[in-house]
Amino acid sequence: MSTPSLLILPGDGIGPEVMIEVRKVIDWFGANRGMNFDVSEDLVGGAAYDAHGTPLHDDTMAKAQEVDAVLLGAVGGPKYDDLDFSVKPERGLLRLRKEMDLFANLRPAQCFDALADFSSLKKDVVAGLDIMIVRELTSGVYFGEPRGIFEEGNERVGINTQRYTESEIDRAARAAFELARKRGNKVCSMEKANVMESGILWREVVQKVHDEDYPDVELSHMYADNGAMQLVRAPKQFDVILTDNLFGDILSDCAAMLTGSLGMLPSASLGAPMANGRPKALYEPVHGSAPDITGQGKANPIACVLSFAMALRYSFDQGDEATRLEQAVEKVLADGVRTADLLGEDGVSPVSTSEMGDAIVTAL
Amino acid sequence: MSTPSLLILPGDGIGPEVMIEVRKVIDWFGANRGMNFDVSEDLVGGAAYDAHGTPLHDDTMAKAQEVDAVLLGAVGGPKYDDLDFSVKPERGLLRLRKEMDLFANLRPAQCFDALADFSSLKKDVVAGLDIMIVRELTSGVYFGEPRGIFEEGNERVGINTQRYTESEIDRAARAAFELARKRGNKVCSMEKANVMESGILWREVVQKVHDEDYPDVELSHMYADNGAMQLVRAPKQFDVILTDNLFGDILSDCAAMLTGSLGMLPSASLGAPMANGRPKALYEPVHGSAPDITGQGKANPIACVLSFAMALRYSFDQGDEATRLEQAVEKVLADGVRTADLLGEDGVSPVSTSEMGDAIVTAL
Ligand SMILES: CC(C)[C@H](C(=O)O)[C@@H](O)C(=O)O
Ligand SMILES: CC(C)[C@H](C(=O)O)[C@@H](O)C(=O)O
Repeated sequence: MSTPSLLILPGDGIGPEVMIEVRKVIDWFGANRGMNFDVSEDLVGGAAYDAHGTPLHDDTMAKAQEVDAVLLGAVGGPKYDDLDFSVKPERGLLRLRKEMDLFANLRPAQCFDALADFSSLKKDVVAGLDIMIVRELTSGVYFGEPRGIFEEGNERVGINTQRYTESEIDRAARAAFELARKRGNKVCSMEKANVMESGILWREVVQKVHDEDYPDVELSHMYADNGAMQLVRAPKQFDVILTDNLFGDILSDCAAMLTGSLGMLPSASLGAPMANGRPKALYEPVHGSAPDITGQGKANPIACVLSFAMALRYSFDQGDEATRLEQAVEKVLADGVRTADLLGEDGVSPVSTSEMGDAIVTAL
Repeated sequence: MSTPSLLILPGDGIGPEVMIEVRKVIDWFGANRGMNFDVSEDLVGGAAYDAHGTPLHDDTMAKAQEVDAVLLGAVGGPKYDDLDFSVKPERGLLRLRKEMDLFANLRPAQCFDALADFSSLKKDVVAGLDIMIVRELTSGVYFGEPRGIFEEGNERVGINTQRYTESEIDRAARAAFELARKRGNKVCSMEKANVMESGILWREVVQKVHDEDYPDVELSHMYADNGAMQLVRAPKQFDVILTDNLFGDILSDCAAMLTGSLGMLPSASLGAPMANGRPKALYEPVHGSAPDITGQGKANPIACVLSFAMALRYSFDQGDEATRLEQAVEKVLADGVRTADLLGEDGVSPVSTSEMGDAIVTAL
């Protein structure tokens, strides 16, 4: 196989800072494990808007379609708050997800032993937590038509459309069941079938996929409001959670916060296999662009580093190398190395973004 | 004024059990505070379906429109899971909300001192928590058209419509600002304006209502996914949270679970003032029908009792009597009286539903 290609889109805010550290890690794998990547870099979000007047240039979109994997930092920032909806930084990210057809968004919510004290939840409730949320990412209310703000009589009305076809639900469900088989073999699917017809169809299709092709996986269904409660009450009851785009947005952020360390959490967004067998894929940290700490050397690069680990696992079939990288991160944490966001009350002084990157490379 | 009227709809599951205790409390106010109510009782949810083949009979709907306040227990249960969507127990509740036009759903998430240990969150994160969520209740994706499951090419598609008019947002916002003025004077409005046009209109109208008529109230806006995170991370940053029907469903359940004691939480759903000046109103506990403990004398009646306290405050202008009732509940808890759901590990033995009701009456 030719050298695998990687498109890096640092984006806005702390995106560029954390990406510098990820490149150190990528370089380490090249120098020490013979894993070379053909790395290119481009703009997305506000950075692309500043350069081109659009949050994602067509050329960048075309490049993203061609590479083996995209690694994204973060998009958005107060500077762009007043932009028109159609050119907001987020539209760049949403266009990538939609046009690459990245229907399965994998969001692990994992509580690292060394950081369990960090959660706002009691230690015994979250220690050892290891949930995988599979969020449908290319449909639902994020993309449904009609949408917009319309005149109606004497006033305006804001409209969005929640919409799911059977095949959209089917493929997201398969992604969840496949993952469950490699983990705890349990899927909990969440919707509001008691209120929304789209939720009824969702439940029905998930059940059908299960019964026909994954009867060995334990499947349960839960209303999304109860899901939010159960995540707060007893998150360890879950293994894989399968849900739609909008519920997934909220529930995965809720789950992420249970771990107490958002700066730690990666994500993978996967589509259908390309000609070379690799899935279309975009990897990004769950945290946002964090404008309040941008440029201060305070950002935690771990979420982005672990996003690259997910790329090794899901795009490049290098599960062992991914585990190596994850263990290096755990070792650094166990050694007490902490960026500012991970500081408790015990008087450790924080390391900078680049010191954390160096520590990970050293641990590798 | 003539005797105020109260329609009691016990509903399903533990609804009838907890309502018996509320009636003891209502009787106490009649006997000891000269506050008499013209109480009638009727069916809703599965109970109404069993009797009439519909989760809300037209006669019951008409009665609900006439009374000064409705007090509802809970609806739903596994027995009704396979019913057609149109006659599910939930449809009875949704019809009441919609036809009474109860646009402002007030959901306090309060952490009782005596129960702070009970939360899955650390005590210092939740002790003293006192949030009021104002959830728009008669519009959004719960009621928007088109909706349903349709054929499209070779497959089916599930569709629901998120839809908000300016006036719907306006009146919900006013309810939130009015409440904030009587509390901490802060409103945080939550939507997904970065992704949904309905969220853009929501944010714009809330800001306008604020600037024109409530400039004294502190207003902030937050994306709903971040809202879920912030609720888990540091819930005490909030005073009043204003949000739409679907986000409100999820975020209020998340907030409720922070308190650790769902069996404690009441809610009020308010509409426009009637001819007598009282708002259309329905009061109900936040907990569901709890089929797993139905009929065992284990249910906690406090959420329903506190819903009646909200009725005293918001429908009958008896804030002092509401406070009296709330303090009686606090006293009972401080005395260590606990239903099974409130038991920690300290070996107290639980009281029954009716013993809890009696204890509250004694404390009054
Ligand atoms: C930035 C935003 C468009 C995005 C979303 O809503 O999906 C983010 O919240 C996420 O979860 O990745
Ligand atoms: C029972 C159900 C229809 C209802 C809702 O979704 O609104 C419930 O979850 C609630 O929050 O009151």
